[in-house]
Amino acid sequence: MSDDLDSRHKARMARKKALIDANIARAGDERGLLIVLTGNGKGKSSSAFGMVARALGHGMKVGVAQFIKSRTDTGEEAFFSRQPGVEWHVLGDGFTWDTQDRAGDIATARRGWEVAQRMLADASFDLVVLDELTYLLSYGYLDQDAVLDAIAARPPMQHVVVTGRGASPALVELADTVSQIADEKHAYRAGVKAQKGVDL
Amino acid sequence: MSDDLDSRHKARMARKKALIDANIARAGDERGLLIVLTGNGKGKSSSAFGMVARALGHGMKVGVAQFIKSRTDTGEEAFFSRQPGVEWHVLGDGFTWDTQDRAGDIATARRGWEVAQRMLADASFDLVVLDELTYLLSYGYLDQDAVLDAIAARPPMQHVVVTGRGASPALVELADTVSQIADEKHAYRAGVKAQKGVDL
Repeated sequence: MSDDLDSRHKARMARKKALIDANIARAGDERGLLIVLTGNGKGKSSSAFGMVARALGHGMKVGVAQFIKSRTDTGEEAFFSRQPGVEWHVLGDGFTWDTQDRAGDIATARRGWEVAQRMLADASFDLVVLDELTYLLSYGYLDQDAVLDAIAARPPMQHVVVTGRGASPALVELADTVSQIADEKHAYRAGVKAQKGVDL
Repeated sequence: MSDDLDSRHKARMARKKALIDANIARAGDERGLLIVLTGNGKGKSSSAFGMVARALGHGMKVGVAQFIKSRTDTGEEAFFSRQPGVEWHVLGDGFTWDTQDRAGDIATARRGWEVAQRMLADASFDLVVLDELTYLLSYGYLDQDAVLDAIAARPPMQHVVVTGRGASPALVELADTVSQIADEKHAYRAGVKAQKGVDL
């Protein structure tokens, strides 16, 4: 009885493997990808940081620009800024409701974007993370066309990861991979504050 | 004109900050969270690995169990297994269509689960990642009640992250935070193979 189950399983899996192998053979390209992680759920920035770890594990060079965050006491910054192979920039002044200063936010956004532009033009970076960039586009603090042009014109093998809610249709269109992270349930709404190690 | 815009912005942001501060004040609990990252999109495991980096940045101790993966040449394994504070276990034999051996897969699942159980019972681990655990539950290779009981009975300050497609209703019910990662677009479907640094 169980032998039967096992042998039917084996036959089904052999067929599945043939299909998957054919798909893998078709997907033969290697190139720098633009990956967009958007939506309201938890996991956008942490996913970008997981890719930083993967890239470092392969000996790649990584640049990270954090556009909104102003705090430098996060776990990710503490951890990665001491790793060889990473250039880590905290470029924000906090969220708009923290600064309450629109002109100042725009100036900060533009200064930050210059740092990002330099990395996007430098083929020595294998991976560039633009964390929370979407907000600067949706507020209109940066010119979307200029930003998308700089991303499109990057070195061909460079991967770029953009995170943040509300990715625009034009950014999604340019991207190779887009994940929409939906917030099905969040501890915060049950009265739990942001926790070290998982949220910051 | 622009002064007007700036001062209306400031007033609106001050109101928004008052609301957000009140919400933060209400969310005062600190405890170990169960975070589930599910759905078909890219970013589930990488998000878990980003949380590993955050936790290490805070000097926390982390345990990782990878239940499906058999390869030890991934960027994440290369990178994290050389970091102090991490116990990293690659416990899989590959996907079901790779092994084509149901009885063997069940035995592998049970051996892996013993490693995870030990970490879930050990309060010295601040964060435990159970990567791709959902598949072992949906295939019926592990007893779901036993798994959920072990997670529920873990030390109160321990965070657990579970990744994988098709999280069951019972797992979602037990979780504090659940992100559904939808696959809006994937480079693989455009003929690009899995890329070092972002996919593995």
